[in-house]
Amino acid sequence: MPVNQPELLPALDVPGFKVGTASCGVKSADLKGKRTDLTIIAADVNCHAAGTFTQNRLRAACVDLGEQAITDNGSNIRAIVANSGNANAGTGIREEEWAQMMIATAADSLGINSNSVLSASTGVIGTPFPIERIVEGIGEASACASGWQEAAHAIRTTDTYAKWGSKRVGDFTITGICKGSGMIHPNMATMLGFIATDAPLSQKQLQPILKRAIGKSFNSISVDGDTSTNDTVYLLSSGLALGHGQLADTDAFEAALTELCIELAQMIVRDGEGVSKFVTINIEGAASEEEARHVGRTIAISPLVKTAFAGSDANWGRIVAAAGNAGINFDPDKISLCCDDVVMMEDGSLHPDYSDEAGMLVFAQPEFSITLNLGMGEASATIWTGDLTHEYITINAEYRT
Amino acid sequence: MPVNQPELLPALDVPGFKVGTASCGVKSADLKGKRTDLTIIAADVNCHAAGTFTQNRLRAACVDLGEQAITDNGSNIRAIVANSGNANAGTGIREEEWAQMMIATAADSLGINSNSVLSASTGVIGTPFPIERIVEGIGEASACASGWQEAAHAIRTTDTYAKWGSKRVGDFTITGICKGSGMIHPNMATMLGFIATDAPLSQKQLQPILKRAIGKSFNSISVDGDTSTNDTVYLLSSGLALGHGQLADTDAFEAALTELCIELAQMIVRDGEGVSKFVTINIEGAASEEEARHVGRTIAISPLVKTAFAGSDANWGRIVAAAGNAGINFDPDKISLCCDDVVMMEDGSLHPDYSDEAGMLVFAQPEFSITLNLGMGEASATIWTGDLTHEYITINAEYRT
Repeated sequence: MPVNQPELLPALDVPGFKVGTASCGVKSADLKGKRTDLTIIAADVNCHAAGTFTQNRLRAACVDLGEQAITDNGSNIRAIVANSGNANAGTGIREEEWAQMMIATAADSLGINSNSVLSASTGVIGTPFPIERIVEGIGEASACASGWQEAAHAIRTTDTYAKWGSKRVGDFTITGICKGSGMIHPNMATMLGFIATDAPLSQKQLQPILKRAIGKSFNSISVDGDTSTNDTVYLLSSGLALGHGQLADTDAFEAALTELCIELAQMIVRDGEGVSKFVTINIEGAASEEEARHVGRTIAISPLVKTAFAGSDANWGRIVAAAGNAGINFDPDKISLCCDDVVMMEDGSLHPDYSDEAGMLVFAQPEFSITLNLGMGEASATIWTGDLTHEYITINAEYRT
Repeated sequence: MPVNQPELLPALDVPGFKVGTASCGVKSADLKGKRTDLTIIAADVNCHAAGTFTQNRLRAACVDLGEQAITDNGSNIRAIVANSGNANAGTGIREEEWAQMMIATAADSLGINSNSVLSASTGVIGTPFPIERIVEGIGEASACASGWQEAAHAIRTTDTYAKWGSKRVGDFTITGICKGSGMIHPNMATMLGFIATDAPLSQKQLQPILKRAIGKSFNSISVDGDTSTNDTVYLLSSGLALGHGQLADTDAFEAALTELCIELAQMIVRDGEGVSKFVTINIEGAASEEEARHVGRTIAISPLVKTAFAGSDANWGRIVAAAGNAGINFDPDKISLCCDDVVMMEDGSLHPDYSDEAGMLVFAQPEFSITLNLGMGEASATIWTGDLTHEYITINAEYRT
């Protein structure tokens, strides 16, 4: 059960984009017709595109091909084709052929060039890719218009609900969908995100804006500390909102995009595999934002911290022990810790007014925040994470069965 | 239930050392008299001492004091005093006073100087230290001679069995005890190890020998990736075996010590919290031993790899994905992977003869090995780890209850 799952407003259509889905039984042929697993996002016009990709050394072929297409042809992108149920990763030479065939099939179906198609895959690693069924599904998906919400369903793997969001800023629209609930960690977790807008931005403007927005959202969450081989966020801009004119206020666009990405990223944590608690980790007083983020991530991946969350146990010593484990320089005599408004530690010592009862009340809630001040400087960062529960073990010990 | 728990031979007495224990109810007063939780290892003569300590930035006061005593007075150490049930960590100023009082009490009881006593504590972090009960227990423990095996029981926290071992090499004896089953990760995991020998080695010889032995043993295991605030291994040498003469063969001593440390470290993994599988991870073909060890550790802490072990699921894609996540440079087209003698991947591609059935047979065993060749060089490292199970969650979500 997701933690405080938000009620989603209907996804807004984005001028210039058509979204189709199909059910082709990627994971196994019996699932054909039972759940959608293939998505095509097609644009009527050439789009400016940006992307952020997994930092895993072992990247799936579709990630390499997507990054290459954006580098070579990022002002003329026409479509994204994506499947769930198989990551098409870890199989070596054949993996690239399969990814190219998936792209070529989508290009043929839409009557566009192969180098204007981006692809993405998610699912089990190291299993041969069922390219015949994918090819069939591409034909079907390119011929229908199911819309963003159905696409958000089709890209799911272990997600318990579909994740989408839209923003209106002035005359333009931004709509995004994403998936992910395990193998989730900064530097692009096993997650896919596809965002489309009709705001007119040059390809040069899009990439740094996306990168900053991702840093504050998808790269600031952690479910289990594992980074996938396939993580990808694509952002396409059709530019149709102002008839291809110049966008005056890129700051407003960036603010809206960042807000959307944070909402989508938080949805992933709330739906994290087995997650029963949603915890906001604020690191303050760090020497740099990078160090703050690193300490926050180290706390967020500690199995002992996460099991204390799961047990509603205010065993906060594990939080400071995890921080000490981050390899970052700080003076233990200067740190302070509070959870919601309960102060555990001040200037490195147990706070005289702290009582375990007060701590336990905070940890009993489904949602709370931790604030650790390192006493080293002015920089800060926020990480969102969940707990580590029996259900996580059940989901992942039996993932392929 | 530990995995393939070894049958331990009786611990050998070491000339020059007397070991006492007491039950003082460190964790809670009700436990007084029910289980032992205080240990004193006392030497008849001044010992040469070496120690290795946690790399956690937040170190308990007893760790700082122990390191200082070895630096200042490492040729004249007379005793180790240790308790389980409370780590005496994370409480700031009072923590140091308590640690000093524990040392002073032991020194008084034994009629020796405070600067010749080392101390160690393990248990919950951030809870006031019950110094009155500890002081009582020290009096009791210093007056009795329970022996090494009883001490191995007394230092346990969540350990399900006591861990000890002895080696005879020529005329001398080495006996060691250790504890630890959670918060276990290289760089001194939540573990304590106390080793005594009557082999005559100078203090200068002891420290580098201990450091190398720890690198290949206690620093090559991982249960959950958390490094504790209190990890400590002490090695004391009474020198009585040869009447304080010079030890000729330090290589034989180092080999025996390393073997003992590996046996003790493997006992910790076999008894890891909730562990149901014992897995040996061999990283070969690395550019350096450091890189090999880092890749091995990254695989060993991946929750997805560990849950695949738990589920007896040969989902080996998670192993290579975790390796890709280590931040180490390698060419994915050159890696090979096998588990026991089943080859999954060769030169970056799925091995043509691999069948999931064969993989599943390997993963179904309680004990197996993984060998990942990075194809970059000649260096290698071995890491021992366990799986991540429901029982780990149960133990750690309810640790304080």
